Amino acid sequence: MKNILIIGCGLLGSSLLRKIYKKKIAKKVFVYEKSKKNISKFKKLKLPGILVKRPEDAVMKSNLIIICAPMSEYKNIILKLNDSLTQKHFITDVGSSKLKSLIIIRKNLKKGVIWVPSHPIAGSEVSGPEHGKENLFKDRWCILIKEKRTKAKHIKFLSSFWKKIGSKIVTMNSEKHDKIFSITSHLPHLIAYNLVKSAQDFQKKQKFDLIKYSAGGLRDFSRIAASNEIMWRDIFFDNKQNVSKAIDLFIKNLIEFKKDINSKKNKSILKKLTQTKKVRTQIIRFKQDINKPDFGR
Amino acid sequence: MKNILIIGCGLLGSSLLRKIYKKKIAKKVFVYEKSKKNISKFKKLKLPGILVKRPEDAVMKSNLIIICAPMSEYKNIILKLNDSLTQKHFITDVGSSKLKSLIIIRKNLKKGVIWVPSHPIAGSEVSGPEHGKENLFKDRWCILIKEKRTKAKHIKFLSSFWKKIGSKIVTMNSEKHDKIFSITSHLPHLIAYNLVKSAQDFQKKQKFDLIKYSAGGLRDFSRIAASNEIMWRDIFFDNKQNVSKAIDLFIKNLIEFKKDINSKKNKSILKKLTQTKKVRTQIIRFKQDINKPDFGR
Repeated sequence: MKNILIIGCGLLGSSLLRKIYKKKIAKKVFVYEKSKKNISKFKKLKLPGILVKRPEDAVMKSNLIIICAPMSEYKNIILKLNDSLTQKHFITDVGSSKLKSLIIIRKNLKKGVIWVPSHPIAGSEVSGPEHGKENLFKDRWCILIKEKRTKAKHIKFLSSFWKKIGSKIVTMNSEKHDKIFSITSHLPHLIAYNLVKSAQDFQKKQKFDLIKYSAGGLRDFSRIAASNEIMWRDIFFDNKQNVSKAIDLFIKNLIEFKKDINSKKNKSILKKLTQTKKVRTQIIRFKQDINKPDFGR
Repeated sequence: MKNILIIGCGLLGSSLLRKIYKKKIAKKVFVYEKSKKNISKFKKLKLPGILVKRPEDAVMKSNLIIICAPMSEYKNIILKLNDSLTQKHFITDVGSSKLKSLIIIRKNLKKGVIWVPSHPIAGSEVSGPEHGKENLFKDRWCILIKEKRTKAKHIKFLSSFWKKIGSKIVTMNSEKHDKIFSITSHLPHLIAYNLVKSAQDFQKKQKFDLIKYSAGGLRDFSRIAASNEIMWRDIFFDNKQNVSKAIDLFIKNLIEFKKDINSKKNKSILKKLTQTKKVRTQIIRFKQDINKPDFGR
């Protein structure tokens, strides 16, 4: 690999930047960042990489372009890059929802330019380059989006890049991706936001000082509900059909749960409360979490 | 304090036991445990304390009795103890829901015996004496239930006990307690169980292998949803009116959220996603969590 251009230097972009320099994956890394706040953080942190004022300035000098900006920025970015792009460029992104962004890419990207989307399953409730770390992607899944017309050599190239970053690779199409992550990621975040909002509404109405007693459950949700709002708005909007279906399934189950509680259906409740434990066992077996109790921090 | 009797030696009971011996809060601690599995763990772990075959055997030798058993056992326990109880005994419990258990206590407990309920806000998704630890209650809130007729000297006595254990004390009545914890603890657990169940239903229907991609949110809920099923069934049943109202508020908000997503109401969504961050800030200020990002374990 010669040079890489990273567009968007927040948590993910700056983590990639750190790892690329650490492992010498590219000669040079150009970085475009829109936010003045993040630019000044970049300078203060003395991050490696060459800041550029306009993304198009670095396109000609780069082979691989990685978009780490919010998905609502994709169209603008594409329109800025198009003039400088050639068929030799390889583009990928790290967005969390895929079907909608592919439509935008197909509609706007200069014909013949390669864009194979990635989705590294890594992150946190914090954002910004100050929180990035070179091992953010280590041993995490990275989903590569393989559509009918995606060429094997392109998957191979992208796969090789992410393996150097430390990720484990899996490929699937955008439709399957968006369905899976509507359940494993998008719904959980929405639920966390909704739970915290409900607690706020309750506190306001009852005038109870309840937040300070949050150690029994609310605390863990509040962490998830502190995630970046632009990123999550974009995900909810872009994947709204699947998210909407996930909400419906969730509400249907919740209403059944409520009925069981109100009519004290012992057997049915115990079945629900024990079967969910199986998922926990699977998650630990798949090394998505460790088998160590959490007593709070 | 002379002697203490602990009834139920799981996570909470065994943690209390460890701390009482460590800080020499009582001369002797008698322990009654119903489950054979926990009794053999108790012996294997060489926990301090004197195992008794029937709880009533140790009542006469004890001043303070602490019930750490599931709330559905309270009535049975009371009926067993009644004959041996005198007006000199002081009873407390560590149950997570209070109004319903107070009704059972008032109806069944021998007249004149003192029972002031406690609710230490401490625990984890694991249960059993092998997970207990002496500092489980350190710097955690312990709610003491003070009803109209509760005597100040009894609150003082119980408060002094929990302070020795390391807890911070707050008093409130059972009605307020059950309302607050329906939102900060019972609803979050129910939501976590319901989310994991929805993921299971989805996996079954779609035949997608989704659990292994759970690092993006589902993972954290699965931990909460691995909590003890008997304890949580009892909480949901005992506090069903408040839990039911909490579910209604949650569903109302979730339907609004869904509408905002489907009609892409930018302003309304961003307001929801940013306001919830304030709760996070409060939780950290109240020292209910630390201000350190969580990248998974």
